[in-house]
Amino acid sequence: MLISCAAYQDGKKLGDIDAGRIADYLGLPGCFVWVALHDPTAAELGDMQRRFSLHPLAVEDAQTGHQRPKIEEYGDMLFAVLHLVEPAGEDFNVGELAVFAGPRFLLSVRSRAEKGFQEVRARCEREPEMLRQGSGYVLYALIDAAVDRYFPILDKLEDELESIEGLIFAATGVPRGNIEALYALKQRLMIMKHAVAPLLEGISNVSGARVPALCVGTTLYFRDVYDHLQRLNQTADSIRDTIATAISVNLSLVTLQENETMKRLAAYAALLAVPTMIAGIYGMNFEHMPELKWRYGYVLSLAVMAAIDFYLFSRFKRSHWL
Amino acid sequence: MLISCAAYQDGKKLGDIDAGRIADYLGLPGCFVWVALHDPTAAELGDMQRRFSLHPLAVEDAQTGHQRPKIEEYGDMLFAVLHLVEPAGEDFNVGELAVFAGPRFLLSVRSRAEKGFQEVRARCEREPEMLRQGSGYVLYALIDAAVDRYFPILDKLEDELESIEGLIFAATGVPRGNIEALYALKQRLMIMKHAVAPLLEGISNVSGARVPALCVGTTLYFRDVYDHLQRLNQTADSIRDTIATAISVNLSLVTLQENETMKRLAAYAALLAVPTMIAGIYGMNFEHMPELKWRYGYVLSLAVMAAIDFYLFSRFKRSHWL
Amino acid sequence: MLISCAAYQDGKKLGDIDAGRIADYLGLPGCFVWVALHDPTAAELGDMQRRFSLHPLAVEDAQTGHQRPKIEEYGDMLFAVLHLVEPAGEDFNVGELAVFAGPRFLLSVRSRAEKGFQEVRARCEREPEMLRQGSGYVLYALIDAAVDRYFPILDKLEDELESIEGLIFAATGVPRGNIEALYALKQRLMIMKHAVAPLLEGISNVSGARVPALCVGTTLYFRDVYDHLQRLNQTADSIRDTIATAISVNLSLVTLQENETMKRLAAYAALLAVPTMIAGIYGMNFEHMPELKWRYGYVLSLAVMAAIDFYLFSRFKRSHWL
Amino acid sequence: MLISCAAYQDGKKLGDIDAGRIADYLGLPGCFVWVALHDPTAAELGDMQRRFSLHPLAVEDAQTGHQRPKIEEYGDMLFAVLHLVEPAGEDFNVGELAVFAGPRFLLSVRSRAEKGFQEVRARCEREPEMLRQGSGYVLYALIDAAVDRYFPILDKLEDELESIEGLIFAATGVPRGNIEALYALKQRLMIMKHAVAPLLEGISNVSGARVPALCVGTTLYFRDVYDHLQRLNQTADSIRDTIATAISVNLSLVTLQENETMKRLAAYAALLAVPTMIAGIYGMNFEHMPELKWRYGYVLSLAVMAAIDFYLFSRFKRSHWL
Amino acid sequence: MLISCAAYQDGKKLGDIDAGRIADYLGLPGCFVWVALHDPTAAELGDMQRRFSLHPLAVEDAQTGHQRPKIEEYGDMLFAVLHLVEPAGEDFNVGELAVFAGPRFLLSVRSRAEKGFQEVRARCEREPEMLRQGSGYVLYALIDAAVDRYFPILDKLEDELESIEGLIFAATGVPRGNIEALYALKQRLMIMKHAVAPLLEGISNVSGARVPALCVGTTLYFRDVYDHLQRLNQTADSIRDTIATAISVNLSLVTLQENETMKRLAAYAALLAVPTMIAGIYGMNFEHMPELKWRYGYVLSLAVMAAIDFYLFSRFKRSHWL
Repeated sequence: MLISCAAYQDGKKLGDIDAGRIADYLGLPGCFVWVALHDPTAAELGDMQRRFSLHPLAVEDAQTGHQRPKIEEYGDMLFAVLHLVEPAGEDFNVGELAVFAGPRFLLSVRSRAEKGFQEVRARCEREPEMLRQGSGYVLYALIDAAVDRYFPILDKLEDELESIEGLIFAATGVPRGNIEALYALKQRLMIMKHAVAPLLEGISNVSGARVPALCVGTTLYFRDVYDHLQRLNQTADSIRDTIATAISVNLSLVTLQENETMKRLAAYAALLAVPTMIAGIYGMNFEHMPELKWRYGYVLSLAVMAAIDFYLFSRFKRSHWL
Repeated sequence: MLISCAAYQDGKKLGDIDAGRIADYLGLPGCFVWVALHDPTAAELGDMQRRFSLHPLAVEDAQTGHQRPKIEEYGDMLFAVLHLVEPAGEDFNVGELAVFAGPRFLLSVRSRAEKGFQEVRARCEREPEMLRQGSGYVLYALIDAAVDRYFPILDKLEDELESIEGLIFAATGVPRGNIEALYALKQRLMIMKHAVAPLLEGISNVSGARVPALCVGTTLYFRDVYDHLQRLNQTADSIRDTIATAISVNLSLVTLQENETMKRLAAYAALLAVPTMIAGIYGMNFEHMPELKWRYGYVLSLAVMAAIDFYLFSRFKRSHWL
Repeated sequence: MLISCAAYQDGKKLGDIDAGRIADYLGLPGCFVWVALHDPTAAELGDMQRRFSLHPLAVEDAQTGHQRPKIEEYGDMLFAVLHLVEPAGEDFNVGELAVFAGPRFLLSVRSRAEKGFQEVRARCEREPEMLRQGSGYVLYALIDAAVDRYFPILDKLEDELESIEGLIFAATGVPRGNIEALYALKQRLMIMKHAVAPLLEGISNVSGARVPALCVGTTLYFRDVYDHLQRLNQTADSIRDTIATAISVNLSLVTLQENETMKRLAAYAALLAVPTMIAGIYGMNFEHMPELKWRYGYVLSLAVMAAIDFYLFSRFKRSHWL
Repeated sequence: MLISCAAYQDGKKLGDIDAGRIADYLGLPGCFVWVALHDPTAAELGDMQRRFSLHPLAVEDAQTGHQRPKIEEYGDMLFAVLHLVEPAGEDFNVGELAVFAGPRFLLSVRSRAEKGFQEVRARCEREPEMLRQGSGYVLYALIDAAVDRYFPILDKLEDELESIEGLIFAATGVPRGNIEALYALKQRLMIMKHAVAPLLEGISNVSGARVPALCVGTTLYFRDVYDHLQRLNQTADSIRDTIATAISVNLSLVTLQENETMKRLAAYAALLAVPTMIAGIYGMNFEHMPELKWRYGYVLSLAVMAAIDFYLFSRFKRSHWL
Repeated sequence: MLISCAAYQDGKKLGDIDAGRIADYLGLPGCFVWVALHDPTAAELGDMQRRFSLHPLAVEDAQTGHQRPKIEEYGDMLFAVLHLVEPAGEDFNVGELAVFAGPRFLLSVRSRAEKGFQEVRARCEREPEMLRQGSGYVLYALIDAAVDRYFPILDKLEDELESIEGLIFAATGVPRGNIEALYALKQRLMIMKHAVAPLLEGISNVSGARVPALCVGTTLYFRDVYDHLQRLNQTADSIRDTIATAISVNLSLVTLQENETMKRLAAYAALLAVPTMIAGIYGMNFEHMPELKWRYGYVLSLAVMAAIDFYLFSRFKRSHWL
């Protein structure tokens, strides 16, 4: 679906144009055409491929989807793929933004994602001095917007991790639930990691040693995006590390607690077993058991049971068995 | 076994030729010979070595088999080895595809693998403008086809992992079986990893800084294969990581569950031990035990037993011991 | 809030100047202006941006805060961000120091941190021969001061780790408490790690192969800071590694101890169960039980119980079960 | 001990020569001398050092032994050290092969190893066209032979690992034995790893970017060795990884099995405790226990015991406690 | 404290000189001054700083101590810091050797370490042809001597590890003690690791691509030290890896053993519970219990108890529960 198609010259919008008239604008000096597609059909994409002479491999990637994030050069063109991660209930919905940027045009293809990039177009049109730098700047602006959307998602994952951590040490929670929650959190984190880490690598190629012609005027901006991605990447690594520790600490604490309980139950059982044994002995039916005839035999036997248990109880307490 | 032997000129097939007449075609301008062998004998391979002046080290590798995937240069020739992974029941059958590519010829040697590469030949013949680029493009097409076969295999491993994950958290499954299944999954994954990771390295040499003459026209295509391999590699790493976590989480959950059970059994045992002890006491044969003569002694003793157990039961419930 | 604003020429202070007159000094030969802000408003920062022609991306970073430590070049300017870590009760308060250094000026922006850098200004003014090298040297002096503040913090973490280690092996402590303490320690350590590791990377750019013009005279000094950071980084890694080992060793020791206890309780229970069983047998009410009528039946039965228990006791002792 | 000393010219053996006449041959065009020592005395080595002007540091390494595998350049000479790993009962015997290769000579020193390299000399003499390339080729042939001996050793380790894996899942084996076997296997693996990994690094220097003059004609051969070493290294890493997993899985399975057993024992104990308690109650000596006088009191009590146990038994079965 | 101060010319010692006359010798052709200090005061060091024009940052490092090992260039001077690790009872004492080497002098500063480097001076004076190369060679000789002292220390750690390993599998030892010993061993190992790993990095700068002028004639020697350090580093990594495995294997074996014991105790308890239950039943006081009146009731009941226990015993044996 074609969302918009407009021509810009020297940083100013000439106006929305019909897709059929794109060729007329590609030749104007200082002019570039910006087209946005959303979940395009193969025909729509094929049409754009012809108009902008896109490389078939890049078009195939945009069509197929499920690519790793990347920024590739095809001659004087750049082809970028980014993941668009949108929370969908408990899970993440991963869409894609594919961007073809040439000296005279920029084509963005959004797939399987709800939220559009209209605000990027608006921002660019408010900054004519930046937009004058052409499609390289628009490419930056789109990537920057997509990357900025990663921050609240990662923040939310961090918050969830913190709330699970609280449950771990409170220990009134359900340990099984904590592990399941941490496991699910890790899987969502990996989706973010797969969105961020390869892109970091890709961006370094347009802000590092050899910069493609298209981005020459905007390297500082791409370096800024690179810096954001590094922050995201570090946060993701940090969360991952903490999840691993939290899983093992959670298990440790639960094991400790269960062991404590078992130990206490075993110690109480021992306290019960002593009187049971003594009672058993005086329950024997031997004819000659002198104690049985004692006046205070019964009371004495109870006293002995109590004394032994009292002794054991205090000893267990001292040994931290109870 | 010779599968096919054909000559091509300027992207078009001249026709199938007899192996004995290969030399006649090697000298024709814009012409190259494409030979496919399957599980060849040493004699067949020796014959090709003479015709194409293959390097003895490369031929030895193709003969011996069980190589790491790689792409090596021998002068102006390229020698590539790929793993062909084919599901065989519960296990994987790992064959090999060795490709010798020179400026005037391409020789592919398939070993210990069922499925051939006829569809690659068909695709190449349908695209004369690509085939005109010579053996470098055919080399790409073969590698691309082999790599594309990795995707469904890895997808299947991912599906299996997910179904095991379901069993872990459902916890009605057999924990022992889960661990065995994860262990077996990991071993099959490692076969894929050994097919993908070294090839990634090898491909980077033909799509990176210094490109061999044979591949100059097809670097973008090799970069595309490289990109596919990176995706495969990332998926494999991700699965491996998840398997490790799943093994440990599975064990944790089982341990938790078993501990729960033991704790409950121990708590119930304690509930039984109390009446047993009291009954033991009133089973003693002392002559002077006044309670024994009480009218409601028996009932009272039962009441005491019940009261203590009721108290313990509710306390255990509160402490989550039951 | 503007803390100070002074002009320096040839290593000597010309005097505090009004912010409005900064432009007059920027043109003087061998002169540079040093401005320090603390938690500035957007307006104050915007004012400085205009006066020193700061790059909007750098200003945005200083304004927003929560950046990774870094040192970036903007043309002939350097922009550095450092974390200021200040102990706040049990936790750390992480502020930031952003420094803009140009050939003619240095602007430092301290955010969310208590302690200022007045002593750096004092030190620089005491060393005119160093200060003569201009803003590059002041940049070094600020970074050096910030980095030096990391040492006591990391030393304290190391001390805490050692005191927890003492508790682990003393084993009179609370194992649960040890794990919580180690977990909390690790989180504070990660704050330090995030302050140190990215800065290490950043500094290597101003002391390594291609040095920015601003730092040419001070590379040896930056290399010294780099060396300090490496020491800090190594210490942090070492602490992290030890925490991981300590957590697992702590759990191991506790598990060992609990197992010991359980084993001893179980062994004692077995010792009690034997007499209970024998007593039970002689408590049976069969009419024909000859032992019951023996003169020394009772004593003999007690002797048998004692003998068996004595035998078991010594055997358990030998097997280290008791 | 001098094993052999022969001179070669243009790929052909001139004949065995006396060590004292080495100098006569060093000057002949296209001629080189090949000397093999086995566990030489310091005097023998010193003698060779003088004749071939070997560097004292290299000679010291060959004398002392226990070096890391390496390939070093001393001017136009190469000095290589390899580990010779020979199975000795359950353990490995690690010897060394030190090779000094100069433009006019090759000196091999074998230490603490049984098996010699006579077959390398025989192979070289059968291939005069290769031997014509001089000592660089002989160096390759020796390294190739030594590396080829690693394969069967690593294969055997792999086989052992597989047979232990079988025991783990069969679970009729002795878990303690499995762990000891895996631990011992890992230690032998590390010996192989220490033989392979540093050599890999060393070989990359003679087959990579800047090739020493001595190896210029044989780079393809060294690359082949490099490839073999990479395969060995990958196999070793793979085995190591599997050992770690196997240790933890073995422990997990054993723990699961033991927990199962404990749970079943505890459940059976609970089944026994119920009748014991009831029997205890009817063993009390109260005067007023109406049930005792019932005609079918005894039978009824047995029935109640059986009923409760039957109920518990079926419930335990359902909960997988039995 | 000044230990010695001597002048050398063309590899020969001119004689011990007074510190005050150092300047006279610095100008002589082919002459250099070698000064050794031990735990110097700030004044002594300041004195040397003036005489040799040492860089203040290097002097500060030597004064402060507790540096990472490193080799730094200051113009045409080299500044090296090494750790001197000396066993002190159960622990290690870590001193430092700081060396300033210029074209005309070498100043060594030993701090907090007992053992001196007199034997290095003696060795150098015995080898005039080497000493002729000046302070670069002396720098090498000092580093070589310091590194050689690491070998016996690491060997001892390896021996200790092996003796603990013996205790683990003998399993008659104290598992708690094993873990404590392994933990302590790891901490001492880390001290060695911190001495070796950074130095390895530092040495690579004086034996690698761009060699400082001072070391041009001695690169082969520095490469030899580098090789030694790599061996040390590999050994340290290997020990660390083994310690980690040993801790986990130790715990595994102990857990296995404890589980075995618990299982056996539980099985024995079950064997005792059966007769106890039966005896309890025949200890009930029902009036109508026909078995009680049987002639052989008692014997029969004992026989039943024995039979059941015999059956259970053999079944437990078969299931490896006993």
